[in-house]
Amino acid sequence: MEGNLLTAHGGGPTAVINGSLQGVVEEAKNHTSIKGIYGARYGIEGVLSEDFVDFGKESAANIRGLSATPASALGSCRRKIIKEDYPIILDIFKKYNIRYFLYNGGNDSMDTCNKVSKIAIEYNYDIKVIGIPKTIDNDLDLTDHCPGFGSAARFIAVSAMELAHEVKALPIHVVVMETMGRNAGWLTAAAALAKRGGNLGPHLIYLPEIPLNEDEFLEDVKACYDKFRGVLVVVSEGLLDMKGNPIADTGIIDGFGHKIPGGTAQALSTMIIKKLGLRSRSEKPGLLGRCSISLQSSVDIDEALRVGRFAVKSAMEGKTGYMVSIKRTNDKPYQSELKLVPLNKVANHEKKFPRDWINKRGNGIKQEFIDYCMPLLGEPLPCYVTLDGVLADKK
Amino acid sequence: MEGNLLTAHGGGPTAVINGSLQGVVEEAKNHTSIKGIYGARYGIEGVLSEDFVDFGKESAANIRGLSATPASALGSCRRKIIKEDYPIILDIFKKYNIRYFLYNGGNDSMDTCNKVSKIAIEYNYDIKVIGIPKTIDNDLDLTDHCPGFGSAARFIAVSAMELAHEVKALPIHVVVMETMGRNAGWLTAAAALAKRGGNLGPHLIYLPEIPLNEDEFLEDVKACYDKFRGVLVVVSEGLLDMKGNPIADTGIIDGFGHKIPGGTAQALSTMIIKKLGLRSRSEKPGLLGRCSISLQSSVDIDEALRVGRFAVKSAMEGKTGYMVSIKRTNDKPYQSELKLVPLNKVANHEKKFPRDWINKRGNGIKQEFIDYCMPLLGEPLPCYVTLDGVLADKK
Repeated sequence: MEGNLLTAHGGGPTAVINGSLQGVVEEAKNHTSIKGIYGARYGIEGVLSEDFVDFGKESAANIRGLSATPASALGSCRRKIIKEDYPIILDIFKKYNIRYFLYNGGNDSMDTCNKVSKIAIEYNYDIKVIGIPKTIDNDLDLTDHCPGFGSAARFIAVSAMELAHEVKALPIHVVVMETMGRNAGWLTAAAALAKRGGNLGPHLIYLPEIPLNEDEFLEDVKACYDKFRGVLVVVSEGLLDMKGNPIADTGIIDGFGHKIPGGTAQALSTMIIKKLGLRSRSEKPGLLGRCSISLQSSVDIDEALRVGRFAVKSAMEGKTGYMVSIKRTNDKPYQSELKLVPLNKVANHEKKFPRDWINKRGNGIKQEFIDYCMPLLGEPLPCYVTLDGVLADKK
Repeated sequence: MEGNLLTAHGGGPTAVINGSLQGVVEEAKNHTSIKGIYGARYGIEGVLSEDFVDFGKESAANIRGLSATPASALGSCRRKIIKEDYPIILDIFKKYNIRYFLYNGGNDSMDTCNKVSKIAIEYNYDIKVIGIPKTIDNDLDLTDHCPGFGSAARFIAVSAMELAHEVKALPIHVVVMETMGRNAGWLTAAAALAKRGGNLGPHLIYLPEIPLNEDEFLEDVKACYDKFRGVLVVVSEGLLDMKGNPIADTGIIDGFGHKIPGGTAQALSTMIIKKLGLRSRSEKPGLLGRCSISLQSSVDIDEALRVGRFAVKSAMEGKTGYMVSIKRTNDKPYQSELKLVPLNKVANHEKKFPRDWINKRGNGIKQEFIDYCMPLLGEPLPCYVTLDGVLADKK
């Protein structure tokens, strides 16, 4: 079917979402029935305001450079789509003869995708709708993992390795590092991949799936401090206390009457100083963890490109109402293939970190996750030197 | 003079301090009069406890791998040396026949170095004492810049570039990034190197040299938000208010009766939410900014290695009481040579960021600093794509 293709980004960017965009644009150019290749600026906002970048007018160099460009080159948004938006979207699709709609995002975006594809059928408008997954949170169901996760996990793993060396080198305090991933602990868990022998951290890892018992937390920090002097603790930004409240909030109430959380690592660090009398500090790379190109995973960017291309190919084969999914076919060496899963089975389901990949005490990650995650980080993690440290004879 | 060489690290690590260690050990091996090559574990603590790593027993691979290893492989400390320590240190030097002492650190360490060299003369003990500079703060005098600064500056510049793309892609909030450098603004200023055309940030940069006027700050943030929607602000962790108090403190009093500062970016972010009603969040890479090997500057690691070697060569030539200093001899291409400066002229003097490299409003950095700093970052900064973004005709 001849017509135009429209792609858009939803939600927070990743280090490889532009890679999927590159895949989409490059593949679309191979198909003569795709007349115009458009990208909506700032996600669904750009769809509603009819702000479409014309990729026919972008240089090949710009398109080639996308996969090494952080954040979303098209722009994205967090606009919640309401029921009334859908007919408007369909009208715009008709007006611009959009026959292929590829929406790149997480849970909410897959829900949008699903609804668009259903309403198009109701309206009897022929359009192929395919969801392209992305999220650093890795919480989409029916896919081994999500593009964007591998790079963010590499950032966290390498950062934790480096911090572990830092903390061992100057063992004067408890360092608490905060990671993104508010509701699902996949990204926080990636810190476990940093673990090496000896006294090197991270020593304690806390995921949002398990409420934090403050007494046990302080007990564990103290035990690590007594043993190692320098301690590295990694926590999710979304950690909750035993009552289900955020460990830290900004003191500000949002539009829904909820306290806005913030500063989890800093709050824990302050708790350590006050309750244990130890020196402590916090690090919060935050958004840096999802836009680092130097720590982009080679496996992740490869898959992001492939997922984009596969979405176009699937649409050209007449498929609609699906999300591209990654199936792991081999572990060593890591290999994957792509397939389609129905959008309605993916939408609105958050895949939490499995409880049985967390240790019993709730402060560490099991080998099962390390085996699952390590291949997604691409190139082997760097090898840093630990001196043998044979001491000169005392005189 | 035949004898043993002892090297040690003082204060916070950098991404290249192990490079200087590698330079010291490799160069020392070229000199037959150096019998033992020792490294004190955990800085002056290891000197006082006579814990000396014997580099004669380390593999060549370990030594070669040092320059790509973060933090301090020997370990460091923040112990303040008191008057009574010096005779003890001298006695230990005699006992172990230490004839070459190379101390790698910042201001405090250069002061220690200076005192050791003076007291050795008083005691009539023949030892060559050379200071090897390092600090991410870049606040040592009589040197164009300090090893460690270029890599930390590269980390801040690249991180700010990536965050600028992130903030432009999802322009829903004011992002405040905090950098290290409590008293001197060199590192914070490196965020200015991230500035590209268009709407890309960082939009506002605040150094600790200028007290923050909160009213002007909020006015400037608001103006940027109205213009760009997504705003990137970069601030020093040590930012002070107009009364000279830290913008944020942990509420905890240290041993000297001072409030322990902390959470400057988060405090400003909360202020933006409360006073301007805008969305805002903070990022604090903190210690990550001084231990990133993937963002190590090629110029910085090269100089760190050279500075280590030069220190050994200088000691072998009989020099004592000096610090190795870097002299910039050419800008394009960047070239430098090493020389010696007297320790007593360096010690205890903090080189602040020049007021006339900051704009009048105190919220931005002038071209003079960018020209000074850019060569120190090594390889050119990455080029990210900004789409030409020609819009499809509206229908």
